[in-house]
Amino acid sequence: MAEKKEESNQAENVIYVGKKPLMSYVLAVITQFGAGQKEVHVKARGRAISKAVDVAEIVRRRFINEVSIKEVKIDTEEREVEGKKTYVSTIDITLTK
Amino acid sequence: MAEKKEESNQAENVIYVGKKPLMSYVLAVITQFGAGQKEVHVKARGRAISKAVDVAEIVRRRFINEVSIKEVKIDTEEREVEGKKTYVSTIDITLTK
Repeated sequence: MAEKKEESNQAENVIYVGKKPLMSYVLAVITQFGAGQKEVHVKARGRAISKAVDVAEIVRRRFINEVSIKEVKIDTEEREVEGKKTYVSTIDITLTK
Repeated sequence: MAEKKEESNQAENVIYVGKKPLMSYVLAVITQFGAGQKEVHVKARGRAISKAVDVAEIVRRRFINEVSIKEVKIDTEEREVEGKKTYVSTIDITLTK
């Protein structure tokens, strides 16, 4: 665990889904469960939300059968870009083993 | 209510989000709540999932403050296309007033 912490200062059990290929996030989630995490959050914003759902579903159905979806939360994030407020939807999928 | 039933044989309180502009689904949800529904489901598959989250969030935050998210369910739909199994992720967002 200690050497993993050095790689990143983000929480280990949070996977942020973005523009990388789907399977790299699937692998990241599997790795967290393999390292002993009991709960992994799959988070995304905007257009990546669909991909986050794919990641959670693929982990659960194709790779780790004992993983289930504990909770799905959606929300809106407010940002200010050049003095103008913009809004982006977010998702937080809690997977539990 | 009776004349509305004739327009469609789908459940009235289920809005399927697809390729139309975002605001047409927002309007459809608002219309259902305006017609007296206490609960509206916003459903989508695949790439439209992000848009479904946007629809729910816009209704809740911008239009009807007393609407809240009761539940978000994600799942996988199995289909057979030309003898080959394909999988698509789905979302079902329950909005309640």
